[in-house]
Amino acid sequence: MLTLYYAPATCALASHIALECAGAAYDTRRLDFGKQEQRSAEYLRINPKGRVPALVTERGVITETPAVLMYIAQAHPQAKLAPLQDAFQLAKVNEFNSYLCATVHVAHAHKRRGARWSDDAGAHESMRAKVPQNMGECFALIERDLLRGPWVLGDGFSICDPYLFTLSSWLEADGVDIARFPKVADHYARMQQDARVKKVLAQHTA
Amino acid sequence: MLTLYYAPATCALASHIALECAGAAYDTRRLDFGKQEQRSAEYLRINPKGRVPALVTERGVITETPAVLMYIAQAHPQAKLAPLQDAFQLAKVNEFNSYLCATVHVAHAHKRRGARWSDDAGAHESMRAKVPQNMGECFALIERDLLRGPWVLGDGFSICDPYLFTLSSWLEADGVDIARFPKVADHYARMQQDARVKKVLAQHTA
Repeated sequence: MLTLYYAPATCALASHIALECAGAAYDTRRLDFGKQEQRSAEYLRINPKGRVPALVTERGVITETPAVLMYIAQAHPQAKLAPLQDAFQLAKVNEFNSYLCATVHVAHAHKRRGARWSDDAGAHESMRAKVPQNMGECFALIERDLLRGPWVLGDGFSICDPYLFTLSSWLEADGVDIARFPKVADHYARMQQDARVKKVLAQHTA
Repeated sequence: MLTLYYAPATCALASHIALECAGAAYDTRRLDFGKQEQRSAEYLRINPKGRVPALVTERGVITETPAVLMYIAQAHPQAKLAPLQDAFQLAKVNEFNSYLCATVHVAHAHKRRGARWSDDAGAHESMRAKVPQNMGECFALIERDLLRGPWVLGDGFSICDPYLFTLSSWLEADGVDIARFPKVADHYARMQQDARVKKVLAQHTA
């Protein structure tokens, strides 16, 4: 049994959808960021970084979305969520997920997490102001160069798809009109219609 | 034959050391960031992100350090640079490299790349001021929770080691005394003595 620690409206959504798509045996624990539960002594013993997601396995805890996603794919090979036998295609999965993790998510985080990188309130305001531009540029690159369509890797659904869906879901609040990116918008709409995605979203918004 | 595009004093150092440790058949192309060669039309056809590293393979280009490192390990299994047959241990590799990529490298980047996230010069100054604190906190976590010793994964050298070495090499310029972190300092010193690392560093500093 796997246990996923998550909070609503965070990148943990990607791992939750991936578990559902893998047909995994799992349960979940919800953290209330409003109550700073991610900073509790109990949770810091699970993930000393105080972030989500954290996936508790029989052998230990896995953190960081790209690592959690790849573990889910490898632990459920019958679900075919990654091209595990093809080193080059697997590198393209890792490349895509690294870009979302280290560039796109970071661009987004400058809206509300500016205190991570500056102690100056004016600086936070200037970071917030640039988020629409940066998120727009990231998604322009995704639209033009990375999303092959209909799924990220082309014909095959993979762990890249719930991750892209999760970050796409942040665009509206980040001041970016998803309609500027037709392939991304189509991908997002198809994901929204997926019964497994609907099930997970219902839990997150409950 | 693999071709690595790199620039000195960037995270491409990790991929270069990994190629050397893998015994790979490869050559390199050096970009001059001072001349903005990473923004040339020729290079943007290779990597539209305008960053390094980029690894050109027979099947296409791979970017993003965690993806390049894992590809090098998978393409050279005899070098045993990753626990390829163990999904949990491989997840720990991905977790470590994702943390370096999305948190530690990003913390460092706020020293000289603040213009990515704000258009205000005062904000850049406040970001620079916080870099020693953030890099110090990242390496305190690495020292306490992530670096098992003597290598990142414990007894086995892996692709995590050249990546940690690369980011450790930034500490002094980031205003952090590596001596605060005895295990990291020991790891850094051992890596510096490795003949393969010396060979790569000599090329980067030439």
